[in-house]
Amino acid sequence: MNIMGDPIYEGKSKSLYKIDTSEDKLLMRFNDDITAFNNEKHDIIQGKGKLNNLICSDIFKFLEARDIKTHYIMRTSETDMIVKRLDMIQIEVVIRNYIEGGLVKRLGLESRRGEKINNDNIGDTLIEFFYKDDELGDPLINDNHILIFKILNQVELHTIKRDATLINKYLTQYFEEIDITLVDFKLEFGIDSRDNIILADDICPDGCRLIDKKTGRSLDKDNYRFDKGDIYTSYAEVYKRIKSK
Amino acid sequence: MNIMGDPIYEGKSKSLYKIDTSEDKLLMRFNDDITAFNNEKHDIIQGKGKLNNLICSDIFKFLEARDIKTHYIMRTSETDMIVKRLDMIQIEVVIRNYIEGGLVKRLGLESRRGEKINNDNIGDTLIEFFYKDDELGDPLINDNHILIFKILNQVELHTIKRDATLINKYLTQYFEEIDITLVDFKLEFGIDSRDNIILADDICPDGCRLIDKKTGRSLDKDNYRFDKGDIYTSYAEVYKRIKSK
Repeated sequence: MNIMGDPIYEGKSKSLYKIDTSEDKLLMRFNDDITAFNNEKHDIIQGKGKLNNLICSDIFKFLEARDIKTHYIMRTSETDMIVKRLDMIQIEVVIRNYIEGGLVKRLGLESRRGEKINNDNIGDTLIEFFYKDDELGDPLINDNHILIFKILNQVELHTIKRDATLINKYLTQYFEEIDITLVDFKLEFGIDSRDNIILADDICPDGCRLIDKKTGRSLDKDNYRFDKGDIYTSYAEVYKRIKSK
Repeated sequence: MNIMGDPIYEGKSKSLYKIDTSEDKLLMRFNDDITAFNNEKHDIIQGKGKLNNLICSDIFKFLEARDIKTHYIMRTSETDMIVKRLDMIQIEVVIRNYIEGGLVKRLGLESRRGEKINNDNIGDTLIEFFYKDDELGDPLINDNHILIFKILNQVELHTIKRDATLINKYLTQYFEEIDITLVDFKLEFGIDSRDNIILADDICPDGCRLIDKKTGRSLDKDNYRFDKGDIYTSYAEVYKRIKSK
């Protein structure tokens, strides 16, 4: 299997390449770039791509085993995995279990920062949809925008909400078992040639808020955003605990 | 009936006073102040309060006749109406029939400005909820925020969506009959002592986008926002047509 040409997509921390063995698959390569605040901050963290690939592969395998459809096929090297080729949905799905991050500023909740969000009942999970557009600053949108502007139909929207709720339930438990609190995280989905909604992109400490239950310290990108700690050490700690499961 | 003391609420273009004849009612006085862009622009338009009171009274009576519960009781003077006293819900409900205003900027829809939004099916009406907080710039919120932060319960949220959809249907027809297109408008609701959801605040050209079908000209506050025309003349034209019905 060989990579064909330049990346067909270059994101902030990974790239997608065509491969010569299949038109329905792509190679996803995690790189060491790290960015924050809509690219205002940008650095290289040696070894981050490798850790994210290891963490993400394990999480996708874990979710697949629980009947969540993901684009993951297999990890092929330290930094690479093979994934299904999808039509990506131009939405970021954010799931929140605690009042943190963008929500605090947007809704003026500073005095409630860190408070657990009551989402014990299915349907009560705090899911936010953001329209992916850097120039517009990824604006929050509601269900009406999604349906009326035909980003998704009713069934697709329902499927994504159900999957996001389930993924949150599974991942909360997954991290709980290694003494980590899943505060919030971001998902992206795509649609395959048979119109299935498939979990895509990545799930790794770049796009999750993870708090060490033992120390209360961040184990995610907040260390970089707010200069709170070392990224490599934090991500390595997450992977060490995942491997120990 | 006399006003008791200072206003218990002073908004940008109206004030609410207690009255001596009932604790369950308030006097709502429309004033001549006009503001735009979160109070960056502020002027006085002589006679605007009177026109808004006349227009709003007629619209509330029209909606009451169609079984929409409103806080309107009666008009008592050129600038005043008596309304039910309610616990106000801290949400602005915006209903959009065309791509215009804040939506254009937020979602980058300049090339589609003025396009009709397809909302022929009930449930497809483009309804947006904004959390009323000047300091936060009235942020957009979704159903999950409303339920999880206990701004409304499931039944109340459903009632407001149903009422907003019905009000839009009735008002679109109301303005259609006087050759005016209802582009978008803002509603606010309150809750009475028996937990009924009641349409409150006002419906007048300060909070609606209205386009004259004959000339294509704005007949609403956009004339003030963007210096497109005279406010008094526009509002007077709306009222003249309403009276001619």
